[in-house]
Amino acid sequence: MRKPMDISEIETGVVGLGMMGSSIAVALCIAGHPVKAVAPVKNELENAKKTIAQLLQHAADSGLLQQSKPHYWKRITLSEDYSILQNCRLVQECVIEDKNAKSRVYQKIADQTKVDTVISSNTSAIPVSILQDMVPEPGRFLGIHWAEPAYMTRFMEITKGEKTADSHANWVYELAHLWGKEPTFLQKDIRGFVTNRLMYAVYREIFHLIESGETSIEDTDKAFRYDAGSWMTFMGIFERMDQMGLSDFRETFQRVFPKLSNTSRVPEMMQEMVAGKVRGVQQARGLYAYSPEEARAWENAFAKFNKEIYQLADNYQKIKNE
Amino acid sequence: MRKPMDISEIETGVVGLGMMGSSIAVALCIAGHPVKAVAPVKNELENAKKTIAQLLQHAADSGLLQQSKPHYWKRITLSEDYSILQNCRLVQECVIEDKNAKSRVYQKIADQTKVDTVISSNTSAIPVSILQDMVPEPGRFLGIHWAEPAYMTRFMEITKGEKTADSHANWVYELAHLWGKEPTFLQKDIRGFVTNRLMYAVYREIFHLIESGETSIEDTDKAFRYDAGSWMTFMGIFERMDQMGLSDFRETFQRVFPKLSNTSRVPEMMQEMVAGKVRGVQQARGLYAYSPEEARAWENAFAKFNKEIYQLADNYQKIKNE
Repeated sequence: MRKPMDISEIETGVVGLGMMGSSIAVALCIAGHPVKAVAPVKNELENAKKTIAQLLQHAADSGLLQQSKPHYWKRITLSEDYSILQNCRLVQECVIEDKNAKSRVYQKIADQTKVDTVISSNTSAIPVSILQDMVPEPGRFLGIHWAEPAYMTRFMEITKGEKTADSHANWVYELAHLWGKEPTFLQKDIRGFVTNRLMYAVYREIFHLIESGETSIEDTDKAFRYDAGSWMTFMGIFERMDQMGLSDFRETFQRVFPKLSNTSRVPEMMQEMVAGKVRGVQQARGLYAYSPEEARAWENAFAKFNKEIYQLADNYQKIKNE
Repeated sequence: MRKPMDISEIETGVVGLGMMGSSIAVALCIAGHPVKAVAPVKNELENAKKTIAQLLQHAADSGLLQQSKPHYWKRITLSEDYSILQNCRLVQECVIEDKNAKSRVYQKIADQTKVDTVISSNTSAIPVSILQDMVPEPGRFLGIHWAEPAYMTRFMEITKGEKTADSHANWVYELAHLWGKEPTFLQKDIRGFVTNRLMYAVYREIFHLIESGETSIEDTDKAFRYDAGSWMTFMGIFERMDQMGLSDFRETFQRVFPKLSNTSRVPEMMQEMVAGKVRGVQQARGLYAYSPEEARAWENAFAKFNKEIYQLADNYQKIKNE
């Protein structure tokens, strides 16, 4: 019989310490792992230290820590040197969405680790089967797709490439439950993954409706927030069909599907945004107008919201499981 | 200068007292209107009395009542007789999605009311411009699209038909704010409305992914609930783009749009569901398996969730407006 996993003895690594990588390092650490965090880009290390400290504080404020903050802090090792990864059983890559950059990173990870160390990518842009071929011993490679903030959200997609070994994929799936995730397992290596694919279908349709003058950005957001936002934390889209009653859907599909946008074209509006260097709320320069103070207030409010929606989702998962 | 509206003096009517109509009657009543509720279908009246009493109790339990419950209860008149509508300034139709049935109802409403009484439909299936032509004095007709439970959700779409008079549409828009709604105004008469259209784009894509073996119903729901469900109450989809940062979207659109489903075909799965008389959670016979007890527990949990998410959305709207 296999020994049950002792998470505190399983070293994990993270390479790439931008916002997502820092957030994943905190998630792995507060789940109980010793964490080796590598900054592969010059000068990333100092920023990462600050970011990780802030995120750990946020996790503490949100009541997610079982132990004291220093207990976790000292279990995260930060370095620019890949050799700290040598005892890791799992290394998560979080660098930019560029094949060449990722290829170099995988080689450096492989140089320092054992042949059965699992290497995973957070990519949502490049197929796992393509990245896999850049990895020595490709059977140990898979996609682990996190949602921000990684230490709070339940979401996780685990994606196998064509060559991923079942044993490794199953081990990660089991581990993910110990991280407090509700992982979904993708047997196939699809680009974009489930939620992203569905959101892109939404984007295609909404840009179409806006470009044809049917609605506006503001009205869309209002409608979505107060309509879909009033049930989506409680149920998925098929559970929603069950709740609405299924009888009218066939007829509606028949009527509406032929009206939906089938375009492959990137919307003009998006071209204009990119040309206008619209970058989003972090730069206080987005589709909406924000002063720097407003942008900060917005980010703070969302951090607080995250905590509350996490708790709400958790309570209802318990009620539904009773 | 126009007198400010005194809502307690504006009589409103509801015709059709299924779940949605009953819920709208409660919404109009607790907003302050005297409400005349007509049951056009034989035997609907007794059920409607029970349903409205239950919903009023739910609203009371949720802390939505300014006055005592009996105060509101006695301001709702229930009848099978359309003549109770004669002093109504607005009559909302909530009967089945059938043109002939709606046409008969509009005629009966028009027979009892003044020519400037606004008549509205909750339809999300038939274009407002088509229904409008069945109404004597079509300029006073428009779509008012509510979300369940009507007395709790902020969502509301007000849709003009080709012949709808601006004065009537503006009056309803103003009134909707007194109902505690965040209405969106649709200048054009599109089928399906914004949120529905976007959800149908989601349905088309997800049935495609499931039929091609890429994912399952259960995994989709899990992914959507824990991913989209973790932000959608806080922000709309364009606010989300701002929050994510906009830089990668153009490239991703270019890559993913050509992969999205363009089908007009109703999915086979849906045909099978309809053939199998799968009807949803209310009949304890849905896409998922529910015992009657589980179905009840599920409905109760959702009613409780509704109250909490309403409060959460409200708190964050205040924070964002600060």
